[in-house]
Amino acid sequence: MDFSQNVQRLQPSATIAVSSLAKQLKAEGRDIINLGAGEPDFDTPEWISDAGVAGIREGKTRYTPAPGTIQLRQAIAEDLQAQFGIDTDWNGVVVSNGAKHSLFNACFTLFGPGDEVLIGSPYWVSYPQIVSLSRAEPVFVAGSEEKDFLLTPEDLDAAYTERTKGLILCSPSNPSGGVYSFDELKAVAEWARDRGVWLIADEIYRYINFLGDGPSAGVLNLPAESLGDYVLVDGVSKAFAMTGWRIGFTYSSPDLAKKMSAFQSHTTSNPSSPAQEAALIAYTKREQSMAEVGKMVEAFRRRRDLVTRLFEELVPSLPYVKPNGAFYLFFRVDSLFREGMSDSSAICTWLLKEAEIAMVPGVAFGDDRYVRMSYATSDELIEEAIKRLGKAVDSLS
Amino acid sequence: MDFSQNVQRLQPSATIAVSSLAKQLKAEGRDIINLGAGEPDFDTPEWISDAGVAGIREGKTRYTPAPGTIQLRQAIAEDLQAQFGIDTDWNGVVVSNGAKHSLFNACFTLFGPGDEVLIGSPYWVSYPQIVSLSRAEPVFVAGSEEKDFLLTPEDLDAAYTERTKGLILCSPSNPSGGVYSFDELKAVAEWARDRGVWLIADEIYRYINFLGDGPSAGVLNLPAESLGDYVLVDGVSKAFAMTGWRIGFTYSSPDLAKKMSAFQSHTTSNPSSPAQEAALIAYTKREQSMAEVGKMVEAFRRRRDLVTRLFEELVPSLPYVKPNGAFYLFFRVDSLFREGMSDSSAICTWLLKEAEIAMVPGVAFGDDRYVRMSYATSDELIEEAIKRLGKAVDSLS
Repeated sequence: MDFSQNVQRLQPSATIAVSSLAKQLKAEGRDIINLGAGEPDFDTPEWISDAGVAGIREGKTRYTPAPGTIQLRQAIAEDLQAQFGIDTDWNGVVVSNGAKHSLFNACFTLFGPGDEVLIGSPYWVSYPQIVSLSRAEPVFVAGSEEKDFLLTPEDLDAAYTERTKGLILCSPSNPSGGVYSFDELKAVAEWARDRGVWLIADEIYRYINFLGDGPSAGVLNLPAESLGDYVLVDGVSKAFAMTGWRIGFTYSSPDLAKKMSAFQSHTTSNPSSPAQEAALIAYTKREQSMAEVGKMVEAFRRRRDLVTRLFEELVPSLPYVKPNGAFYLFFRVDSLFREGMSDSSAICTWLLKEAEIAMVPGVAFGDDRYVRMSYATSDELIEEAIKRLGKAVDSLS
Repeated sequence: MDFSQNVQRLQPSATIAVSSLAKQLKAEGRDIINLGAGEPDFDTPEWISDAGVAGIREGKTRYTPAPGTIQLRQAIAEDLQAQFGIDTDWNGVVVSNGAKHSLFNACFTLFGPGDEVLIGSPYWVSYPQIVSLSRAEPVFVAGSEEKDFLLTPEDLDAAYTERTKGLILCSPSNPSGGVYSFDELKAVAEWARDRGVWLIADEIYRYINFLGDGPSAGVLNLPAESLGDYVLVDGVSKAFAMTGWRIGFTYSSPDLAKKMSAFQSHTTSNPSSPAQEAALIAYTKREQSMAEVGKMVEAFRRRRDLVTRLFEELVPSLPYVKPNGAFYLFFRVDSLFREGMSDSSAICTWLLKEAEIAMVPGVAFGDDRYVRMSYATSDELIEEAIKRLGKAVDSLS
């Protein structure tokens, strides 16, 4: 079948592929531990779910404006205002069907033929696809391993050309767990400002931060003069355990927001209205939300400590990036390569079959030497999984 | 600000614009009757809403596969099987964030630079935008007024070129209310088959049909040999009064479905999971759903009769397309044109201010001689609105 050249370079999402295969093996009765998924294992807090239920009961099941209800856009703007102590304009908020959708709206509206968009490698799987679907060229910038793959102005300079129009930055990073400090973020933002490059800041994991207390540094923490053109991408999925509801948002200039709204109005219309009601409560009841977030972050921090401790103990031969945020451990497996098993996909297939643990091959994130393990699961399963991993690795030597 | 050439031809949705303006005047205290909206005035049936609530309570708030849960895809395939008495394959179903999203997925995946896509005029506002966003060329085919704007093979032949790759067909039609009979649909489908043109069948209004009992003729009613390549687009919005939930679907070859799923997996991911739970019940409890649909269709039929009777009585000078389906009256206003009020937008602005009724100018649908009135509202408001319209029209003579 002839598909459009629009989708010529389109690949199915590799993270979803592994998670599907794992589900299949599980359905066949295998005792698979799934460490592939990119979602918190917590349920949506009940009082947030209650708001979704109330929305349905009150008949909030009709079309809303394409960029979301005014109430939700205002609540998000006020939340940003409270978090960052800056003036915000709700006309700059566009609510979409998840942060991924927000990223697609932003890239499709800003980038096009002839444009290059810088993407730090390792990268989240959908970035290059979203840039290609926008008809622009993804350009990968490999941050150095020594700096946990965090990009520096020097790294960016090496990749910059006259066609560079955007930079997608993910902090805390999926897949590496790397987190930019305020100063590191400021340096990158000023680099983008000085070159007239759009900064697309994916901060969906911002709350899940172990570098000090509270969320990691975000673009809105920076002094206004450090920022050029930017789009902030965030949403409820990771912070409030609301992945399936599908509510993300962008915050940008009202001009750009208007254009993205028009795009959204012709391609998907409003995000699901009951989900908007649930998100509205999450952003309105700020204190309650922060208490909820705090509990989850504590659990993730404890698991991060557990994972790294067990790794040192049971899999000492495999190095990993220090996970300072999100809920992933990105570890290096190329020392295990041998004939017939010489890339990250082969390693993951082997681990799925031999050790019955599902993880995502690093090639999906642009680094074939690595594998990503999600630790958004129970302590017991984490412990069992790393035991299995250690045993499998030992069996090779 | 420089936006991408991807969105150069993008216009905000005109139907949404009018509905926003009407809401604003209403908020200012004006007694506006809004006949602009494109959604049923009924609430989502309670037992369907209950399923959404149950989904939330059961924690169905996590990621699902990008093209929807297997259960929902299977339920939709089984529903199609039951409706049309044909074998269906659930791998051909892709569930999206509404039928508009389904159309975008299909067009973006199938059409591209150099391709022409035929669109019958008057057309639903987003069709040309969706085709342009897919980088293809929308080509308008004006059906004849005498045939209620329904397209014939002769109309299509006149527009066909070697670059014609698709045809978007909407029956029952928004905005005209025209409905293709089985034979008319068959002739168009065979025309597309013979020329290797993709038939994109938008059947979102199929249940709301006044030509005989039951839904209007759909592509799956046609003998298999009449069909070439096609994509069926449908969803829960209009039939089950579920507009805001945002659940639409395509049914196509599994090959195409797989490609559209990949596209969706990188741009929006799954449609909202609680909404999928609600839709699942709507498609599973077929008899109950059909009873619900029957009640709504009866109400729409009664209103259609009311609207046309009142039009003959109070606005006899304005001709209209016989509304055989959907819930719109498409009527001609060019006899009212005069200096300073010489197009459909000026007429709608005048009617909004003078008669306090909100309707959508025909220019949004590609025919500046017309205006679209939605009769998805109460009998009382319909009666009052047409009285006001008649008075306003009389005041001009």
